[in-house]
Amino acid sequence: MAAPKAIEPLAQQLSEAMAAIHHRGWCDGTGGNFSCVLQRNPLQLLMAPSGVPKGAVRPEELILVDGSGDVLRGQGRASAETLLHLAIVQHSGAGAVLHTHSQAGTLLSRHYSREKDGHGALELHDLEMLKGLEGIRTHACSVHLPVLANDQDLARLSMRATPMLADAPHGLLIAGHGLYAWGQGLPQAQRHLEILEFLLEQHWRQLLLQALKR
Amino acid sequence: MAAPKAIEPLAQQLSEAMAAIHHRGWCDGTGGNFSCVLQRNPLQLLMAPSGVPKGAVRPEELILVDGSGDVLRGQGRASAETLLHLAIVQHSGAGAVLHTHSQAGTLLSRHYSREKDGHGALELHDLEMLKGLEGIRTHACSVHLPVLANDQDLARLSMRATPMLADAPHGLLIAGHGLYAWGQGLPQAQRHLEILEFLLEQHWRQLLLQALKR
Amino acid sequence: MAAPKAIEPLAQQLSEAMAAIHHRGWCDGTGGNFSCVLQRNPLQLLMAPSGVPKGAVRPEELILVDGSGDVLRGQGRASAETLLHLAIVQHSGAGAVLHTHSQAGTLLSRHYSREKDGHGALELHDLEMLKGLEGIRTHACSVHLPVLANDQDLARLSMRATPMLADAPHGLLIAGHGLYAWGQGLPQAQRHLEILEFLLEQHWRQLLLQALKR
Amino acid sequence: MAAPKAIEPLAQQLSEAMAAIHHRGWCDGTGGNFSCVLQRNPLQLLMAPSGVPKGAVRPEELILVDGSGDVLRGQGRASAETLLHLAIVQHSGAGAVLHTHSQAGTLLSRHYSREKDGHGALELHDLEMLKGLEGIRTHACSVHLPVLANDQDLARLSMRATPMLADAPHGLLIAGHGLYAWGQGLPQAQRHLEILEFLLEQHWRQLLLQALKR
Repeated sequence: MAAPKAIEPLAQQLSEAMAAIHHRGWCDGTGGNFSCVLQRNPLQLLMAPSGVPKGAVRPEELILVDGSGDVLRGQGRASAETLLHLAIVQHSGAGAVLHTHSQAGTLLSRHYSREKDGHGALELHDLEMLKGLEGIRTHACSVHLPVLANDQDLARLSMRATPMLADAPHGLLIAGHGLYAWGQGLPQAQRHLEILEFLLEQHWRQLLLQALKR
Repeated sequence: MAAPKAIEPLAQQLSEAMAAIHHRGWCDGTGGNFSCVLQRNPLQLLMAPSGVPKGAVRPEELILVDGSGDVLRGQGRASAETLLHLAIVQHSGAGAVLHTHSQAGTLLSRHYSREKDGHGALELHDLEMLKGLEGIRTHACSVHLPVLANDQDLARLSMRATPMLADAPHGLLIAGHGLYAWGQGLPQAQRHLEILEFLLEQHWRQLLLQALKR
Repeated sequence: MAAPKAIEPLAQQLSEAMAAIHHRGWCDGTGGNFSCVLQRNPLQLLMAPSGVPKGAVRPEELILVDGSGDVLRGQGRASAETLLHLAIVQHSGAGAVLHTHSQAGTLLSRHYSREKDGHGALELHDLEMLKGLEGIRTHACSVHLPVLANDQDLARLSMRATPMLADAPHGLLIAGHGLYAWGQGLPQAQRHLEILEFLLEQHWRQLLLQALKR
Repeated sequence: MAAPKAIEPLAQQLSEAMAAIHHRGWCDGTGGNFSCVLQRNPLQLLMAPSGVPKGAVRPEELILVDGSGDVLRGQGRASAETLLHLAIVQHSGAGAVLHTHSQAGTLLSRHYSREKDGHGALELHDLEMLKGLEGIRTHACSVHLPVLANDQDLARLSMRATPMLADAPHGLLIAGHGLYAWGQGLPQAQRHLEILEFLLEQHWRQLLLQALKR
């Protein structure tokens, strides 16, 4: 079993990642949330408190939550979305989860949610950038990014997400809400986030271009 | 009654907020204006002087105006728009007002102003980001952002705005002009501004995407 | 007659303005050029040398040219476009000229150039941002931004531009090329540049939105 | 024969160029790669290692590869794309190669690749910005940016690219992948990159505008 990571350097890295993500316009207002596994056994998650602007959280303002989402250390509440962060780190093996509200993510998550039940998927294919997702070796492939209906009951939403986590391309969309991206550690999660956000913006432009050809 | 806030830290925060807002391209040229309540009784408003680029105003260059819009302290004139800032802090309970000229705000404020009288409204619904507006607990709601006809007579414009302030979602649009966003204090107003600007840009993309589906 | 301005502070301001303009993506590559009047009688213009990236010119790398466009001081050549800068400062009374290559400026300059002779105009109206242009007091007005055909013969291009300078709204477009904006001094020219670039980007979005309504 | 350039200043410049390129969103995730010729005889190329985010590579983390793509010095692997970098420096005379994954580059590289074989070309004409490409003196010209089909076999891709390098406008596109831009040295390559990325984004907007006119 790996020894618990020192909390200070991880908190510093997470705080810097959040500032960079806000700078790109992917977590405006108090949108988004971001977490890292500090230790696995028992599970401890370092994350931003709920209801604050995520681009200006200092390392010492991050909170520590346990596997049930209860705050172990730090000021402030844990977001209701903590349950989905926990489901992801428990079922995908991820060590970091980055949840953003970008323009393209919000737009396409709605566009591809089916009228019937709000679920759906977005297909991405034949793009070199797909190779930035762990495990993909060629552009000549097709990836399905799951879309889940939005739900304020996060226990129910997390339960719906769980069976999709193993096959999801290190990310999934919540309809009218945004993207969750994850990775083995924070650097991998940051890479997957940038790749998926790039691909979402690219897909939006492709929709425009295809419409022009008609 | 709350003691008056110290002027220096508030001036520092307002100056930094204005620089960040300019950095996003929401107050180009000499566009926009920004104010904070320093004290309520009698009312004193800290704000940027008129006719200067708002992204580079130093704390000591901010002016102090009274409840009639007269300059109590500082160099420079108060903008004619001070009257609308005052109406908002007096009738909505806001402690800070941020007025921006963004691309999406300008575009949609015109698009949704009725030909007849220039007034109108923009409906925002089913988006998680709505929860960033104080008082909203679920994405499953619908919010109407009022649009007022533009008017160089700010006393008249403020009078027209006043009855809308209690129900407005911490913001309103002036047609062909831009957004006013407010909040209990400066941090809340900044949050509401980022949320509303995000939702306006998102709405613009939704209009494009819906047109493609036809 | 005003005494000549000290060269160092003006060079510092011009260098900083150029860095900010590059940061916005308005002078990529070696595009654009930027000048300030150092003295009027005889005319001396401080400007960037030709063929260098304009966002990284240090104050001491700026050159000084006379009223004929000959270099009085400094390393490097004067751009052929110096002739148009000189025409503007001589015929509009401007003390600073900022020439940019933005996406919207390039696109619309082409769109509004007539097939016959390459000239044309772009109408801007009913926008509060117009009030950022010196001399405009209300949004309820209409402004025509002239478009000139592009020409590698800058003496001829400057001669064609000259009769338009008095009525132009502190700016004009060269087709497929970009924007010239000017003002009494550097701060006014920067304000006019931001205003005109905002209005060009806004006009582009209006064209998209109007097309959707059809 | 020119003496080999000192490695440290070149590494510093390349690291700074990569950070600036990431800042513009042209190499998200681990996308893109960037190289400079350190010496010609025998050939030594300074470049970023494979599989790392290119915006945060410190000068001492750059690797040195020889004319076969083998790592001479430094940690980390050379990207498979090193073969194309080498083909470019050997056949075009370039001293620096910058490979980006921008939104417009990715989109248009796909749009202009023929269904039959994936190859194609994108025509750029009548734009002043073309003059930022070495050797072009007037906007009144037409330039063809080659598009090659994407291929994970980089030896084969490089062989296909080689005959196009002499006539290419200091750049070429790989379909669904991105742009390669080059120049005599790093500053020229950076200039060509900014010019070509500007022209690609401009071309995308032109496609939208033309579709609206129909």
